[in-house]
Amino acid sequence: MSWIFIGVILIQMLNKNDGWFYEEINGLRLGFLVEDILYHEHSSYQEIYVLKFKNLGKALILDHCVQLTERDEYVYHELIVHPALFTHPCPQRVLVIGGGDGGSVREILKHEMVQELDLVEIDAEVIKVAQRYFPSVSNKLRDKRVKIHISDGRWYVKKNRSKYDIVIIDSTDPVGPAKVLYEKGFQEDLVEVLNEDGIMVIQSESPYLHEQFIKGLCDFLKDIYPIVRIYVYAIPSYPGGMWSFILGSFKYDPVMADEALIEARWRKMHTKYYNPKVHKGGFLSVPQFMLKEKESE
Amino acid sequence: MSWIFIGVILIQMLNKNDGWFYEEINGLRLGFLVEDILYHEHSSYQEIYVLKFKNLGKALILDHCVQLTERDEYVYHELIVHPALFTHPCPQRVLVIGGGDGGSVREILKHEMVQELDLVEIDAEVIKVAQRYFPSVSNKLRDKRVKIHISDGRWYVKKNRSKYDIVIIDSTDPVGPAKVLYEKGFQEDLVEVLNEDGIMVIQSESPYLHEQFIKGLCDFLKDIYPIVRIYVYAIPSYPGGMWSFILGSFKYDPVMADEALIEARWRKMHTKYYNPKVHKGGFLSVPQFMLKEKESE
Repeated sequence: MSWIFIGVILIQMLNKNDGWFYEEINGLRLGFLVEDILYHEHSSYQEIYVLKFKNLGKALILDHCVQLTERDEYVYHELIVHPALFTHPCPQRVLVIGGGDGGSVREILKHEMVQELDLVEIDAEVIKVAQRYFPSVSNKLRDKRVKIHISDGRWYVKKNRSKYDIVIIDSTDPVGPAKVLYEKGFQEDLVEVLNEDGIMVIQSESPYLHEQFIKGLCDFLKDIYPIVRIYVYAIPSYPGGMWSFILGSFKYDPVMADEALIEARWRKMHTKYYNPKVHKGGFLSVPQFMLKEKESE
Repeated sequence: MSWIFIGVILIQMLNKNDGWFYEEINGLRLGFLVEDILYHEHSSYQEIYVLKFKNLGKALILDHCVQLTERDEYVYHELIVHPALFTHPCPQRVLVIGGGDGGSVREILKHEMVQELDLVEIDAEVIKVAQRYFPSVSNKLRDKRVKIHISDGRWYVKKNRSKYDIVIIDSTDPVGPAKVLYEKGFQEDLVEVLNEDGIMVIQSESPYLHEQFIKGLCDFLKDIYPIVRIYVYAIPSYPGGMWSFILGSFKYDPVMADEALIEARWRKMHTKYYNPKVHKGGFLSVPQFMLKEKESE
């Protein structure tokens, strides 16, 4: 296959930057040394690159933002999945909105209780690219418990009337096609597809760089869920170092989850970052500056 | 004063990089947009820059590594100080090795019990620069409880025979003048200046980027201290996002520290990042990949 005409703009940019790819926000840059450009395409929704980074392996870039690198994708995927899945005593039906790379699916299926997993990805191209370039991330997308829906998450939720124990919003940054997933209307619709003891989790950007965004999100989630908890972890390939997730729950509080029960379930699986202590640690480690009026107490 | 001839090499580098200052490690770069070069000097020990970064304020750069920025220095300084100080029920005498910027001193003196604080900084120039350019960081260096010693930490510890409740190794990266502070010989000497229930804490780099270094450090600290604990936090201006500290203790375990007692003491002070939950969260949040054989159990 000929890639001669692809990635011309990126190549120009890389040449200008001595081969470095940069993500930039508010005067702070995170740079990755590029060894190869493996793929470039404009899908109907976004610009997709697969780059090979020095030391970090292959990387999936959507609209100029690093979504995952082979080296550290487990951090994000373990941490968007396991706190919610371990908080629920028996998660059987799970919905993932976004997450076409398959990393969240891989982690969810480590929970033996899960019987059905619906993945709603708006961009079929992301799934194709993940299956071709990131087999270690996407290898569970073909599991018989997984049903893939190429659809807008918003419409899927409006039309679907089955109920889930867990909904995971594994989306890109809240700009472009993902923006609506962070709006109150969508979050209210979500309630209709959640069981009465259901849990919703959403990635919610960097506390250092997007403090007001997180505050706004928490504010309206508190109108919907009686239990709203922020948790934080460090992700090296995301700008600002610290990344946050917000969990909304009708019944189960992740902070009060029984550590012995989590331990018993976790012992049966392999994780690289998550463990029952990390579960608790993420919720406790929210910096003081983030706490004022930002969590339910 | 004329700064015409200073910083020529940095200016050349900044011009080449469109005004960005980069810290680089293993194919990963952290970049800061530079608005101004405020100071440049070669001291006897290191090259010192004070730069003005966009959004992050003034920054102290030692041997091309960002030591602190006005915007986020509180994260590092609160977290190298408070876990140890709150773990000890009555810290009265404290020794800081390094830390000439004064940030650790400022945090230590928030603890009313502290009566004497010895600061041993090898490079007088760092203190001068901090007092001139970073008053909000260095403002407690003139407190009457603080005694400043311009000296090599290694020799100070060998000659000094008074005892401390807490020793904080607030040094630069383990290269150049700071290298010896991370060696077993120095750590063994430290025992002689620690009380029988004393606590030592040392900054220990990034778990993502320096895993083997941290492992080696933990290994020999476990020969010295019955209790060795790693704790981790996200620091946006340090490469790799996640930063680690190691605490060695003869008697008090930071993980078992009484939360109500910490709460009572903490209520009297102002912190931006640390709180009693963050205290516990940092120790719990150590990723699974770091744990195997790396902590005392």
